[in-house]
Amino acid sequence: MPSEAYFLEHVGQTYGYFFHTKDILYSAKSKYQQIMVFDTPDLGRILMLDHYINFTTTMEAFYHEPMAHIPLGMVEKPKNVLIIGGGDFGVAGQVLKHKSVETLSLCEIDEEIPKVCRKFFPHMVEPVEKDKRFKLCLQDGVLFLKNAPAESLDVIIVDSTDPFDTSAAFPLISEEFYQLVHRVLRKNGVLMQLMADYIFFKETWHEVLPRVKKHFRVFRPISVTIPLYVTGTWGFLLAGKDRESLKPTLITQDFLDQLGNIQTMTPELAQGWCSVPKYVENAIYPK
Amino acid sequence: MPSEAYFLEHVGQTYGYFFHTKDILYSAKSKYQQIMVFDTPDLGRILMLDHYINFTTTMEAFYHEPMAHIPLGMVEKPKNVLIIGGGDFGVAGQVLKHKSVETLSLCEIDEEIPKVCRKFFPHMVEPVEKDKRFKLCLQDGVLFLKNAPAESLDVIIVDSTDPFDTSAAFPLISEEFYQLVHRVLRKNGVLMQLMADYIFFKETWHEVLPRVKKHFRVFRPISVTIPLYVTGTWGFLLAGKDRESLKPTLITQDFLDQLGNIQTMTPELAQGWCSVPKYVENAIYPK
Repeated sequence: MPSEAYFLEHVGQTYGYFFHTKDILYSAKSKYQQIMVFDTPDLGRILMLDHYINFTTTMEAFYHEPMAHIPLGMVEKPKNVLIIGGGDFGVAGQVLKHKSVETLSLCEIDEEIPKVCRKFFPHMVEPVEKDKRFKLCLQDGVLFLKNAPAESLDVIIVDSTDPFDTSAAFPLISEEFYQLVHRVLRKNGVLMQLMADYIFFKETWHEVLPRVKKHFRVFRPISVTIPLYVTGTWGFLLAGKDRESLKPTLITQDFLDQLGNIQTMTPELAQGWCSVPKYVENAIYPK
Repeated sequence: MPSEAYFLEHVGQTYGYFFHTKDILYSAKSKYQQIMVFDTPDLGRILMLDHYINFTTTMEAFYHEPMAHIPLGMVEKPKNVLIIGGGDFGVAGQVLKHKSVETLSLCEIDEEIPKVCRKFFPHMVEPVEKDKRFKLCLQDGVLFLKNAPAESLDVIIVDSTDPFDTSAAFPLISEEFYQLVHRVLRKNGVLMQLMADYIFFKETWHEVLPRVKKHFRVFRPISVTIPLYVTGTWGFLLAGKDRESLKPTLITQDFLDQLGNIQTMTPELAQGWCSVPKYVENAIYPK
């Protein structure tokens, strides 16, 4: 393994991020993906999956905070939460800040990810694994949902690799998947799913939305500010069974204060991310 | 001039954007900076100044809309507006969407920029130059302010190159500059200035804020979503003479609808961008 390298994270044909490191700490191919860990002076330690940035230690909160607190903030006193993917434990750490949460299952298909993260990101993994409410399942998320009792979960968060790019995530945007999620969520339950950027990956939205609409009464395309994700914002999908769910106004300053040290969110930003500017509308509902 | 090139836009020491083009249309050094124009299949036509992206035709609205409509939205019926920099006419085009505006002066120090943009971005330049309210001044912004009558402007927008990186923009963050802006703005006037990212360029904020506080009654650090600017958000400074100014709640849906085809803004996003998450607070007010 070389100790120094340049990485190019391509978007489209002709542009993307480059990263230079002199400290590659880990590089190996698991059954599902190429896993790399490297250090940089500017961004801290980086987890890269199949040559896409997963997170950097200096900026992980920009991704992990909204991913957890937007859906959990939309359910009154959420008790039972499932994360599909998220084997780096970043979102899990945020979910466990919610005192109402009684059980958190994390369903990661690639057993190598938690192993690598235990070694290289112990500050993110250890507090989660010590928490008695937490359970790690090294399992396919679809299989987990098939075996779960109906109406047993308040929030399901899908923190997978990009659904337009990796075969491991394809089943998580299938019609069967949305049917299963609908069955397993409680009446006021919420799905939060990593989806795709609105500028470069419109096709993913066109493919997914009809499946979501078929099963859920309400949904919202949301765009969250995430530094180091291409274009600086990223598209997520929120879906709810009940017409009254998915209210961003429930994410108040009091709510955020109770969670403790939240770095990247404000109530106003949460509402902004949940609003739909014209470029998003035009991207996902083509005329 | 080669027709094909890779460009690296460095941030810090070890990462940044790369761009590949097979269509370099223009490359020359002006008195102030290296000006390049090139085409890409993914991002459209790009204006690059000193190897930093200025804008791409596919994404210019993300920068130019908020730069104009946030400050103009905070003043009741703004009549007289000044842009310092902005020689690509992008912000000017947005300012002229406001029917209340009677005069718009654009003060560009580098005469080559309008020339290059007239040739390569005529769709942005021509509608502005045809508008009788518009006046181009090829002049130093500080000099313009020195000669301007007191309390003669409603909004001043500084659309310069990065103030942490280019000597041409240094005078625009000097104490003298803020004193001049304060003198020239009307009582309810607003300054909107491109400043610096809160993650990588904190020092700029530490340098500028004491100067701003000395002259203005109110100010706001704001962070706007701008794809292709490093970290995907960028820091701007809003400053006002009157304690009652700088209210983001004035940017309503009605206000945006009256402007016509606004792509990237919603009232909720404008309020979100004007809110201050902890990471911004910690960056600009170090403990």
